[in-house]
Amino acid sequence: MEVGYLGPKNSFTYKAASYYFDDSLLQPYASIANCLSALKKNQVDYAVVPIENSLEGSVHTSMDGLFQEKDITVCREIILPIQQNLLVNDLTIIPKKILSHPQALAQSQQFLETYYPDVLIEQVPSTTFAAEYVAEHPSESVAAIASKEAASEYGLEILSAGIQDNRFNQTRFWLLGKELLNHDNRLPEKMTLFITLPKNAPGILHKVLSAFAWREIDLSKIESRPLKTELGEYYFIIDVLIHDNIKLVEYALEEITLLGAKYQQLGYYPIVIKE
Amino acid sequence: MEVGYLGPKNSFTYKAASYYFDDSLLQPYASIANCLSALKKNQVDYAVVPIENSLEGSVHTSMDGLFQEKDITVCREIILPIQQNLLVNDLTIIPKKILSHPQALAQSQQFLETYYPDVLIEQVPSTTFAAEYVAEHPSESVAAIASKEAASEYGLEILSAGIQDNRFNQTRFWLLGKELLNHDNRLPEKMTLFITLPKNAPGILHKVLSAFAWREIDLSKIESRPLKTELGEYYFIIDVLIHDNIKLVEYALEEITLLGAKYQQLGYYPIVIKE
Repeated sequence: MEVGYLGPKNSFTYKAASYYFDDSLLQPYASIANCLSALKKNQVDYAVVPIENSLEGSVHTSMDGLFQEKDITVCREIILPIQQNLLVNDLTIIPKKILSHPQALAQSQQFLETYYPDVLIEQVPSTTFAAEYVAEHPSESVAAIASKEAASEYGLEILSAGIQDNRFNQTRFWLLGKELLNHDNRLPEKMTLFITLPKNAPGILHKVLSAFAWREIDLSKIESRPLKTELGEYYFIIDVLIHDNIKLVEYALEEITLLGAKYQQLGYYPIVIKE
Repeated sequence: MEVGYLGPKNSFTYKAASYYFDDSLLQPYASIANCLSALKKNQVDYAVVPIENSLEGSVHTSMDGLFQEKDITVCREIILPIQQNLLVNDLTIIPKKILSHPQALAQSQQFLETYYPDVLIEQVPSTTFAAEYVAEHPSESVAAIASKEAASEYGLEILSAGIQDNRFNQTRFWLLGKELLNHDNRLPEKMTLFITLPKNAPGILHKVLSAFAWREIDLSKIESRPLKTELGEYYFIIDVLIHDNIKLVEYALEEITLLGAKYQQLGYYPIVIKE
C-alpha cells in the first residue's frame, strides 16, 4: 500500500498523514494537484491533502480537484493545530528577507506587519523549502516561517515562536481513497456535498437550503466556488452534520434533486481532532 | 490626487486602473495589503485591487482586508477579460522551468498539465516579475506566464497565446475610495454586503436568505469566508442586484438585523465591463 501526501517530509500534511500510516508507506508529492492525480491514476491507494485553514479558508486546489470526481471518497477528516515560527541560522541575525509558503505568510500577516514592516517577503513553494534555503545560506540575513519540526530537521534557531495571527489556527486535512478505511472503527459524523444549482432559477439556493432547514439538519459549512464557466456561476460546498438524522438527509437530497439541483456526495466520514 | 493599485506597471490591475485615471496619478503597490493600507491611511485617494477571477474565485486578501472597514466604499466594479500567455526569450527554447504568480499558474493549470507535465513550476510575486526574470536570464531555459503587454514591455516572444483554462477568463476589480466617484454619471446596480450571523442559531443563514428570497431580490453571489476566530466560523459576502427594488432591499436589511445578523454595506456601485 502507498499513501501520497502534499510534501515535502515534515510538512503539516506529512504530520497529518503520519497519524494514520507508517513512514515507509508515505510518498511525498510536490503539489496538491499531483497528489490527487496519483490517487486518480491508482499510483497510490490513499492521499492526504489540506482542505481548509481557520485563518485562510478553503484550499481551493483540493476542492476544485475533487469536484466531479466520482471514484474518490473522504475516508477521514483530520484536524491539526498549526503553529508557525520564525526560524534563523543564528539568533543574532536581524532578518532582511523572510521566506515562506504563501499560506504560512498569510497566516503570519499581522506579525509581519507589526515587527517586520520593511523586510522583503518572498513566496517559496513550501515551508520546508524556506527552512532548507535558510540552512544552506548562513551568510545571508534571511529567515523562514515554518514548523518547529522543520527547525530541528534543518538545525535552525527559533527567533519567534507561535507567530500565526490567531492561537486557534487549525487546519483540516482529508484522507482520501477509493475504498473506505476501517481500521479504527469510528462512526461517520459529517457528509460533504458539492451542489450545482440549475441556471436562471432565482432564489434556488434559498430553496435548497430550505430542504435542510425545515428538517433541522445542521450545515456546518456552506461555501461557493466558481464553476469555471463564466463569472458569477458557482458550485456550493456544503458540510452536513450527521447524528441520527441520516434518513432525513436522504429525503432532503431527494428533494433538492427534484428542484433541479445536482449533488455529488464526496464522503460521509469520521472526524479526528489532534491536540 | 493619487491612486494606488496592485502593481507592478502593466499588471492586469494597472490595466483596470488606467481606464479611469491618467498614468501620472497611478502609484503601484507591491501587495494588495499595502495598497489597502495606503488608502486607509489617506496616502492615496483611491485604490484599485482585483477581487474575483472567474477561474480562481475571490481574491481573499482583498475581501478580508475590507471586512470591518467602515470608511471605504466600492466606487466602481471593473470587469476585464484576462488572457495568459507563455513567454520566452527565443522561440527555439524548450522551457525547463516556468515562472508566474500563483493565480496565473492556477489559471493555466490544464495547459501546464497537458503540455509541460514534467517542467519545474515556480511561484514568483507577480507575472511582471516572471517576465522580467526571463528577459534578464537569456541563457536559462525558462518561460514566464504573463500578459501580452508584458511580452512587449520586456521584449519577449509568445510561445503559446491564450493558455488560460477557459476562454471566458475574466477578473473583477474594485475601485475603492472614501468618497464616491461621480465623473461618468453611471447608475449604481449592485450592492455588496458582508454579513455576520449570530452564533449558535441553527438555520440562520437560511432565514437571512429568506428575507431576500420572498422579496424576489436577486443575489448574484454568496460566499463564506472564515471569521479567523475558530474553524467553522464564517462571515458571508453577498452581492445584491439592484434595479427598482432598493426600498425592498432596505426592508430586507432591517429584517436580518432583527434576526440578530450584522451587515456591513461595502458599496452600492455601477459595473463597467471592458472587452
